[in-house]
Amino acid sequence: MRLAQRENFQRLLTPRHIAFIGGRDAAIAIREARRRGFAGQMWAVNPKRDRLEGVPCVPTIADLPEAPDAAYLAIAAGAVTEALAQLSAMGAGGVVCFSAGFKETGDAAAEQALIEAAGDLALVGPNCYGLINYVGNSALWSFEHGGWSPGYGAAIVTQSGMFSSDITMSQRSLPMAYMVSAGNQAVLGLEDYLDAFATDPAVRAIGLHIEGLQDVARFERAALRALERGLPVVALKSGRSRIGAALTISHTGSLSGANELYEALFDRCGVISVTNPSQFLETLKLLCVTGAPRGARVAGFTCSGGGATMLADHAEKIGLSFPAIEGADRAGLKALLPEIATVSNPLDYTTPIWGQPEHTYPVFSRTLEAVAPDFTVLVQDYPAAGLDDSKVYYLNDAEAFARAATERQVPAAILATIPENMDPDTRRMLIEQGVAPMQGIHETLNAIRDAACWNAARARILTSPPAPLIPPHAPAALTGQTEDVGKDWLRRAGVPVPEGRVVPAREVGSAAGEIGFPVALKMMSRRLAHKTEAGAVALNIRDQAGLKAAIVQMNDAVAAYDAEAISDCFLVETMSPPPLAELILTLRRDAQFGHALVLGSGGVLVELLGDAVTLLLPCSDADVRRALEGLRSAALLRGYRGRPAADLARIARDIHALTQAYLADCAEIAEIEINPLFIFQDRIAAVDVLLHREARC
Amino acid sequence: MRLAQRENFQRLLTPRHIAFIGGRDAAIAIREARRRGFAGQMWAVNPKRDRLEGVPCVPTIADLPEAPDAAYLAIAAGAVTEALAQLSAMGAGGVVCFSAGFKETGDAAAEQALIEAAGDLALVGPNCYGLINYVGNSALWSFEHGGWSPGYGAAIVTQSGMFSSDITMSQRSLPMAYMVSAGNQAVLGLEDYLDAFATDPAVRAIGLHIEGLQDVARFERAALRALERGLPVVALKSGRSRIGAALTISHTGSLSGANELYEALFDRCGVISVTNPSQFLETLKLLCVTGAPRGARVAGFTCSGGGATMLADHAEKIGLSFPAIEGADRAGLKALLPEIATVSNPLDYTTPIWGQPEHTYPVFSRTLEAVAPDFTVLVQDYPAAGLDDSKVYYLNDAEAFARAATERQVPAAILATIPENMDPDTRRMLIEQGVAPMQGIHETLNAIRDAACWNAARARILTSPPAPLIPPHAPAALTGQTEDVGKDWLRRAGVPVPEGRVVPAREVGSAAGEIGFPVALKMMSRRLAHKTEAGAVALNIRDQAGLKAAIVQMNDAVAAYDAEAISDCFLVETMSPPPLAELILTLRRDAQFGHALVLGSGGVLVELLGDAVTLLLPCSDADVRRALEGLRSAALLRGYRGRPAADLARIARDIHALTQAYLADCAEIAEIEINPLFIFQDRIAAVDVLLHREARC
Repeated sequence: MRLAQRENFQRLLTPRHIAFIGGRDAAIAIREARRRGFAGQMWAVNPKRDRLEGVPCVPTIADLPEAPDAAYLAIAAGAVTEALAQLSAMGAGGVVCFSAGFKETGDAAAEQALIEAAGDLALVGPNCYGLINYVGNSALWSFEHGGWSPGYGAAIVTQSGMFSSDITMSQRSLPMAYMVSAGNQAVLGLEDYLDAFATDPAVRAIGLHIEGLQDVARFERAALRALERGLPVVALKSGRSRIGAALTISHTGSLSGANELYEALFDRCGVISVTNPSQFLETLKLLCVTGAPRGARVAGFTCSGGGATMLADHAEKIGLSFPAIEGADRAGLKALLPEIATVSNPLDYTTPIWGQPEHTYPVFSRTLEAVAPDFTVLVQDYPAAGLDDSKVYYLNDAEAFARAATERQVPAAILATIPENMDPDTRRMLIEQGVAPMQGIHETLNAIRDAACWNAARARILTSPPAPLIPPHAPAALTGQTEDVGKDWLRRAGVPVPEGRVVPAREVGSAAGEIGFPVALKMMSRRLAHKTEAGAVALNIRDQAGLKAAIVQMNDAVAAYDAEAISDCFLVETMSPPPLAELILTLRRDAQFGHALVLGSGGVLVELLGDAVTLLLPCSDADVRRALEGLRSAALLRGYRGRPAADLARIARDIHALTQAYLADCAEIAEIEINPLFIFQDRIAAVDVLLHREARC
Repeated sequence: MRLAQRENFQRLLTPRHIAFIGGRDAAIAIREARRRGFAGQMWAVNPKRDRLEGVPCVPTIADLPEAPDAAYLAIAAGAVTEALAQLSAMGAGGVVCFSAGFKETGDAAAEQALIEAAGDLALVGPNCYGLINYVGNSALWSFEHGGWSPGYGAAIVTQSGMFSSDITMSQRSLPMAYMVSAGNQAVLGLEDYLDAFATDPAVRAIGLHIEGLQDVARFERAALRALERGLPVVALKSGRSRIGAALTISHTGSLSGANELYEALFDRCGVISVTNPSQFLETLKLLCVTGAPRGARVAGFTCSGGGATMLADHAEKIGLSFPAIEGADRAGLKALLPEIATVSNPLDYTTPIWGQPEHTYPVFSRTLEAVAPDFTVLVQDYPAAGLDDSKVYYLNDAEAFARAATERQVPAAILATIPENMDPDTRRMLIEQGVAPMQGIHETLNAIRDAACWNAARARILTSPPAPLIPPHAPAALTGQTEDVGKDWLRRAGVPVPEGRVVPAREVGSAAGEIGFPVALKMMSRRLAHKTEAGAVALNIRDQAGLKAAIVQMNDAVAAYDAEAISDCFLVETMSPPPLAELILTLRRDAQFGHALVLGSGGVLVELLGDAVTLLLPCSDADVRRALEGLRSAALLRGYRGRPAADLARIARDIHALTQAYLADCAEIAEIEINPLFIFQDRIAAVDVLLHREARC
């Protein structure tokens, strides 16, 4: 955001005055501003009415008493550009443009005109629900809205207006700071909101509903700034499926890039990625109320064996740990618990002491002392309204639990197994005590795990922050190069390839003699991108007779496959010894994300499993190593069945060097696919490669 | 259930009179019976009080005016057995025993005495919350309870009292028929309830919260009867994790068997398996209101591009299909939609026609005609109470949608993206119209998918129902047999094994000469269960010299590994040609589940992926084939990279024959592990085998 725009965005967020421009929709927005408790000045602009919801109208924007900090615009699309130009000229701050009929209908020219007219205005939309400030009590919003704030909370930005409304209507007591429905993002985009909210003291977490990003590099920088400030960002990325991606383009005009690239981006800058709307809200709630735990060790309490079992089941599945209680701690706790209770973590403290804080508080406190966990949870499904004679028992235990957790300085949540089984009063009371009121057993455990992982990722990323993403070159036509050309490039880049010669058929024999048998023989031709399928590869040739036979057979096979592909140009190579593992390595460019490295398990595994990890470039040695360790076939590199382990640091360094060589040359090299890349104990070797150059080279 | 017990269970379910026996807890149960609207006679038994909640007390059970159809028992554990004996003797029907202090505290003798005293009484518990009849308005329940019924619904049985209470408190308008908290299952177990509810006309689906089963074979028969009657069963199995399984044993005394065996059981008898409490409730709701769809083709509607995208994303992930709308249908729909709408499925019908049934009804109807789906959904997040001026628009579309779906006879649901965004009045109204009011976008799509799969599984299973499970033999000590003994057994069972001879070292050469090189050589010794690790296997020996060297090397290696393992007994075998795929096949017994076949991807895959499928025995050819097709490595059997495809029917038949031979011999054979089992185009071959016999044989 430009400085002027940024100042204007602050005015829009916390306006002294709002001008509501339009008719019926503007009237709704006035009601919503009042609902939010907006205490500043309100003006209305409408040529046909005297008053809108009691606010006196002036006929035109020019008649406004002064430049408004904020304007809500809900007029015919055709009149929007002119109105924006006027507001900009008079020095207004920001505008929420509810009006639709721009890029989303295919009218790019109208959107461009709107952008130019906006000047330095902080423009939200067009085609959006607007903006709500829950901490400063202001709203420029197009429909009835709900939601609340304890004075801090989540800043949520969505690319779907309806979804932003669904969130304000949710019944989860999620502390809110701001809600933005970003609409077409003609002027302000997700990246801008992320950047602005990252420095707002009321914001404890940022939630982004992303259909597609406009500027990946700027998003990355903004996300890293939030990370540096200790502000977690949670992304709900939709448009992941084939149909979903097509729908996203049709309804917002945003490009929905490949899932793997988005996940690589989120991983790169420590953004928590979720797929489920409930999970999105619960994760934000946990982060806002308790912050992220330091680690994944949890102490759990229930007054039901069934609840303890469910906690343990899901925790094990997602990698949260409930450390056992042993030795003196075990005996100490046993003495505090009823006879029928079993000392365990999670702990069913059993009904004989239920609701009796004089008995439950010592149990909570002693357990937290014993486990010294990073987080603690108490499972409580509160009774429904009107059926809550027993609620006092629940509250007794809740307060005992909150006290123990506060004293032991352990971040804490109380969770309902079934999400709706916690009433609003209880939720608010817990938030006041700094305990997260969590809804849904799986959602809660997932949130704790993701928050703990965020903290670990933050430490890792801030220790060596990623270099900025490199904007991609304009796409051009690609030309696949023959394997020998690819290997020449690799050799120059320092990547080992098998020793070999490129020779005509008549010199194949002497070349093999020089190199030494056994050899591999491959026909080189630009028309043979798929050499194996074409019969243009012969492996493990043991002698001159075999070599001659192979040439004859290869000529026949390629003639049958594609007569024009035949060439008198053969690559003769030494056979590589069997590796510890085979990988597939791809370096490629993407119009939106720049450049990426894809590492996959090779051979049978990649095809059966689609097992691959994507990294955006530039990356570090450590990134490559984490990617290698994330592959299913990593077990093959760790000393599988008595074979030696690979020197992963060394392997990662070699692969990283290759990515650097690729980036240095990426104006000319468009894509490199090494398949297979052999991994040996302390080196890599590119056994086959397909390199694509820009056609202009 | 015995006949007398079954009749008594009916009396307990729909009692003419209930005797409440006890003090404070009995008083609560009286209130809960009244809350449920129980209109029959109520008696109270308490020696110290005149009245309990206004019900006159008699001092002892003997003073009751007649034998009660139902009794609620909440007295000291020590007095329970005597009370049950009295109730049984006087001809009472059933008893809910709230009292605890039996098996769950380790006192098996007290529980046994209780079982004997109960006689033909239909006893629920002990250590349980009780039983609620929502359709017949009766309750024997220990705490405040919620829940409702439209006259039909789910019968839910839980092994956790607290979880049963959590469910009655849930705010989902789940139609309920019965709720049973099964407690210790001293007399009536999960299997009995399943059996009884499967023939109850008010029950549309059965929900089971299972920590551990007591009688797997009876459960299977009962589940198959429910399947035959068209009654879906949904299981939430907990105690899946290491800690969870231990907790389950400690709090209910139930054995929590291996996860894979439970999943195999559920798959075998068409039980839908879920892991999440919300999913459990939502799946039951869908099944109760709409029944299971015939297939997985869905038509989806939203008034938000974001909603359509989220639908498409999750559907693709779980294998639900939203078929595209093409050709004339596309043009026809285009004419009914606003200009800005894009014809697609899921369809965002866009705000210009929102809430206008004269426009939305034709869109719904025409789309259903075009797609002819198995199920249809409309996404609507209703506004919160007090913020619902616009609710009428939602209801207009809801009614138009319900009408179109009813007319086209398509089962239908309206779903809220965020679970709580649908108010109780709307939920009830939808249920009256036969439309499922679903809460949570993922939960809804999962429920549709699982219900569609249930219908497919039902057709498949009823076509050739599984034979009854075979009770396992009592466990005994096992003795591992040498490979040649295992292969002899396999040969007799008709399973191909490589040609081979077992000979002393001095005859190895001539044996190899007879068989023909190349050969494999293995030392046979009962102490060599892990031959490869011991160096007791040499493969691909090409000539006599190699053979001699191998014997020397093998003797040295085994001597180093375990000197006592050395034997002068060698297996010389032909080398098998390379197969299409390697599997691991295990046949084994389980104390709880009888006998099982485990088929896993072999070689590297099984260790890297743990890719395996478990089948309970006996099974069919078709079961084996489905298991093979479920393996990740199945791709290798379908003609991978130009190699031939395996004749899967033939392979499945051969493996099935092996399971039959195992079962015929399972009194003596305790376990067989074939690793690897080679799969060729039209045959299998057991390349190595470890067979365990009962030690007594």
